[in-house]
Amino acid sequence: MTEIEQKFKLPKRFEGSEPSVWVEYIQLALDYKPLNLGQGFPDYPPPKYVTDALTEVASNRNLHQYTRGFGHPRLVQALSKLYSKLIGREINPQTEVLTTLGAYEALFSTITGHIDDGDEVIIIEPFFDCYEPMVKYAGGVPRYIALKPKNTNKSVLSSADFVLDRDELEKLFNPKTKAIILNTPNNPLGKVFTRDELTHIADLCKKHNVLCISDEVYEWMVYKPHEHIRIATLPGMWERTITIGSAGKTFSVTGWKLGWAYGPANLLFNLQMIHQNSVYTGCTPIQEAAAIGFETELARLGTDECYFVSISKELEPKKEFMAKFLQEAGMKPIVPEGGYFMLADWTPLESKLNLSSEKDKYKDYRFTKWMTKNVGLQGIPPTAFYSEEHKPLGENFVRYCFIKQDKNLQAAADLLRNWKSGAKL
Amino acid sequence: MTEIEQKFKLPKRFEGSEPSVWVEYIQLALDYKPLNLGQGFPDYPPPKYVTDALTEVASNRNLHQYTRGFGHPRLVQALSKLYSKLIGREINPQTEVLTTLGAYEALFSTITGHIDDGDEVIIIEPFFDCYEPMVKYAGGVPRYIALKPKNTNKSVLSSADFVLDRDELEKLFNPKTKAIILNTPNNPLGKVFTRDELTHIADLCKKHNVLCISDEVYEWMVYKPHEHIRIATLPGMWERTITIGSAGKTFSVTGWKLGWAYGPANLLFNLQMIHQNSVYTGCTPIQEAAAIGFETELARLGTDECYFVSISKELEPKKEFMAKFLQEAGMKPIVPEGGYFMLADWTPLESKLNLSSEKDKYKDYRFTKWMTKNVGLQGIPPTAFYSEEHKPLGENFVRYCFIKQDKNLQAAADLLRNWKSGAKL
Ligand SMILES: Cc1ncc(COP(=O)(O)O)c(C=O)c1O
Ligand SMILES: Cc1ncc(COP(=O)(O)O)c(C=O)c1O
Repeated sequence: MTEIEQKFKLPKRFEGSEPSVWVEYIQLALDYKPLNLGQGFPDYPPPKYVTDALTEVASNRNLHQYTRGFGHPRLVQALSKLYSKLIGREINPQTEVLTTLGAYEALFSTITGHIDDGDEVIIIEPFFDCYEPMVKYAGGVPRYIALKPKNTNKSVLSSADFVLDRDELEKLFNPKTKAIILNTPNNPLGKVFTRDELTHIADLCKKHNVLCISDEVYEWMVYKPHEHIRIATLPGMWERTITIGSAGKTFSVTGWKLGWAYGPANLLFNLQMIHQNSVYTGCTPIQEAAAIGFETELARLGTDECYFVSISKELEPKKEFMAKFLQEAGMKPIVPEGGYFMLADWTPLESKLNLSSEKDKYKDYRFTKWMTKNVGLQGIPPTAFYSEEHKPLGENFVRYCFIKQDKNLQAAADLLRNWKSGAKL
Repeated sequence: MTEIEQKFKLPKRFEGSEPSVWVEYIQLALDYKPLNLGQGFPDYPPPKYVTDALTEVASNRNLHQYTRGFGHPRLVQALSKLYSKLIGREINPQTEVLTTLGAYEALFSTITGHIDDGDEVIIIEPFFDCYEPMVKYAGGVPRYIALKPKNTNKSVLSSADFVLDRDELEKLFNPKTKAIILNTPNNPLGKVFTRDELTHIADLCKKHNVLCISDEVYEWMVYKPHEHIRIATLPGMWERTITIGSAGKTFSVTGWKLGWAYGPANLLFNLQMIHQNSVYTGCTPIQEAAAIGFETELARLGTDECYFVSISKELEPKKEFMAKFLQEAGMKPIVPEGGYFMLADWTPLESKLNLSSEKDKYKDYRFTKWMTKNVGLQGIPPTAFYSEEHKPLGENFVRYCFIKQDKNLQAAADLLRNWKSGAKL
């Protein structure tokens, strides 16, 4: 080690940081060019009016300079209109909404702005992978609880079959508990928490004076008869909830990296301070275009033309098709109630595989890498979404994303069918 | 205080955070609608080919999804080509360049990724205001040193007259020193550090094994005969320098919030880890459009058509005009060598003012607010750019921005002239 290498290590609180699963799997995709059902974004164009909005904004040469740091005025106005309706209370666009660089930065500002050294944060597994390092870097102590199947005899499981053990959850709450991170619809499982489940969580939050960080980026992707319920609407919860959303997910433009958080002004203030000192302000043309998107949807809210309605209808047959072809291939999918991911148990295929060429610690990493290289189909290993101690719960699974063109889902089905029929046992 | 307010305070390391000068002065501008020479952005359109690039990218419906987290491939390629030329060494686009959400996030990732509890960081005053909270929140200890006028007898001062005391600087370096933050051309003073000055800093960095964080967002705004020198090009400095740039400043599109950092892979790794866990990835269409911008400029580098050359020529007469009208109004401007800000000593006008209506602690806050409300001209109070102990050094000054339409600079001149002639003594 040179003198420089020795001195310029990562600060202690970041020690052990390493590139995330995304860095590794994006590189894998670049190297092997598989059919990619890994990352969560559509492989087909977003709604035309959305890209048209950005095109129009970009061509207006007066919309390219700094805007208000805590949120572009036209966008916070539109967000406050939308969520005031959905939440059933007047949301102040100046003090109760913050726009961020993706839901990712909203999570970062929320966690960093609220979690102090030694604070405990309850994280429900499987979880969107960044929650864990964000909590740790803030000095917090993650306390994990896994969703577990309550009924494993069914031939096809639904994400609704995965539940929290209520006693186990209650025991996690204690005087050190600062926050719980909720993600509904959940990534990667697709679970949509029911009113009853949310009420249980809400009651615990109120009883123990705990903050609820509600990541609702998939709020518009929910499959009938399931229903997205915003925990901030439960009695006494607005006061202690920060809700997070994403324009990338909402309008199928993940590359826009625009998100937001809303909640009571006193809780939002902490986010504003972190936002102010890490990025300061968001992208003006992107925010203006998203504002146009929201204004368009606000005018047709609840109608069939509304993208917030049609997106789930568009995804429903894709989800059904994927569940079917995964079953035909011999896997056991967990049919999601929301979101655009599906977990599937791949271990029934174990006898067809020889994973010894892969050296990763966890089986799902070996499986997904082997499949990328040998079958040309890429998924994401779900152990990335579990804490170290609970990773075995994810090892038998793979996560596939189904917001993909029908022809690519068909191609995935064909790859699996051909592999299955041609594979030597 | 309610139970909620009591529990959900800012974490200790952020205690005392408050809205920055920008939040307050943007609101002031909204309330009083002055002629705004405050914030640093052009009030006229950016180059047409730049907004055309974004328009074209936006209309391509395949460029709206997530891109590589550490930088959009086409953009890091273009940045590496450009800076390889400028720095005179091959820069690896994968490992030695990181794109960020504005230079702001590059500063955040650099400081947070390198500064550990108790590390000392040397900050040169006056400084871009976010350096201080960023260092403090990382657990670092800022050590300040002010640029001071070496020759106050001249009738018109230049930013070149402001220098560091070499002994004072040397004494700041010690075994706890982790980094020094350099900003050339400097905001707000406009100082462009000379090769001799940079060599002195570089020698101290090498002697004490210290990281140099070089904020060069105004690298293309330098007035003849002054020259921008990149400290990373000095012998032995590449290894210990992270250089930061901004597309917002480079292409006069501050609202794009796109920045970057480049430097050796081992130093960049720390930034990548922070970036990965705070925002993860940047905006795809904005990065693609900026890549087109760089490719365009690379093809005409060094020619008069190159925006990197023409921008300074465009700004030079604006700078001269502002220096003149400020003098005519009775102020004493410090003529900048680079950047697009000018500090001016307003105290010769003190007898014309009655600032008692303003209650701020520092005179420059009172002056700038009074001017906004009574004369209709807004500037920024420079004490925001000094540490608590050195704020008196900034109190006699105001910062004006001159990347403004000629007619608005003329309007500012008129406002001042009319006020001066009409003002009751
Ligand atoms: C649950 C969840 N939260 C947050 C995000 C980040 O969203 P954004 O792209 O808006 O930063 C994602 C992205 O996949 C996600 O799945
Ligand atoms: C010295 C300096 N560094 C960094 C920045 C931030 O640049 P960006 O808008 O790219 O985040 C500014 C903006 O004014 C600046 O003046």
